[in-house]
Amino acid sequence: MQVSTEQLFTAARTQNGYVDEGVGDGTLRRLYELLKWGPTAANSTPARFVFVRSPEAKARLLQCVSPGNVSKVTQAPVTVIVGMDLEFHEKLPKLFPHTDARAWYAGKDAAIREAAFRNSSLQGGYMIIAARALGLDCGPMSGFDAAKMDAAFWAGTAVKTNFICALGRGDPSKLMPRHPRLDFDEACRLA
Amino acid sequence: MQVSTEQLFTAARTQNGYVDEGVGDGTLRRLYELLKWGPTAANSTPARFVFVRSPEAKARLLQCVSPGNVSKVTQAPVTVIVGMDLEFHEKLPKLFPHTDARAWYAGKDAAIREAAFRNSSLQGGYMIIAARALGLDCGPMSGFDAAKMDAAFWAGTAVKTNFICALGRGDPSKLMPRHPRLDFDEACRLA
Repeated sequence: MQVSTEQLFTAARTQNGYVDEGVGDGTLRRLYELLKWGPTAANSTPARFVFVRSPEAKARLLQCVSPGNVSKVTQAPVTVIVGMDLEFHEKLPKLFPHTDARAWYAGKDAAIREAAFRNSSLQGGYMIIAARALGLDCGPMSGFDAAKMDAAFWAGTAVKTNFICALGRGDPSKLMPRHPRLDFDEACRLA
Repeated sequence: MQVSTEQLFTAARTQNGYVDEGVGDGTLRRLYELLKWGPTAANSTPARFVFVRSPEAKARLLQCVSPGNVSKVTQAPVTVIVGMDLEFHEKLPKLFPHTDARAWYAGKDAAIREAAFRNSSLQGGYMIIAARALGLDCGPMSGFDAAKMDAAFWAGTAVKTNFICALGRGDPSKLMPRHPRLDFDEACRLA
């Protein structure tokens, strides 16, 4: 499918409001079918996703988010909760079958947590770009009560919330002026 | 610029070997000019990048990486070190000027570390997709001695290494068979 770097990067904006237009199951499945191919350490793919759309689930989510994020979550047709599975290594015999990669992590809590956080965040980045490729606007947020989120959406699992991201068609009237970025020489060095 | 989701996601492969073809300054600058627009919390953009190309810097890098990554780093025309600046909040008065976002982080080491790790990893994801948009193949790696890396490349700064990523034109003869991914229902839930 043809897309443009303007759509993915240079012209894409973080949205604060959304128009009243739903996002179907098919679009969410296509989103996963793109993002799942992004690279992760030992193909561990530790990110887990809950796509919150129903009034019941949205009400539960609204109990967990910071006051500044209530109107965004209320308006967005979907808010995806990006989690990280702290038992991701149990799937490595399937995902990375040619060696015993499970043994690199099993029983090593700090290594598990670091790999789960890094790689689920990478996958969150792939998700944001893939959503834009499908014509969705994104509003990533990290303002929420993590313990409440984990209890409300990941009870009975080893998954912890990493961040959340509103998805939908943005309302351009709610956009803020664009913030500056660091220059190449402030952020990069050639060596 | 037109690109395709095949190039970015579904047909892109993590490379293990690279053909002997350099990557110019202009390409690295274009890479940053794309990735810098990806969203981060409070526009904090905590990722810092060292593009290792010179024989001297590559020799230093090779002292820090795991044995399994030596041949990849040796062959790749560029390996980028993605760091996270633990003083990123000092730039928030410039990057997020309409409120005192610096105060959300200053003196809060756990919050700084969490935000720096999450958001520099997101930026790492944007970098990988942006590199593919520019026709580069990627080989991300987290097998290295982090303390040695920090001493060798970030001395005198508050930047810590997050991960490294080889960039170049991949050698298809070195590709492994593609690993499977989790199905939608293994990784996702509609709520």
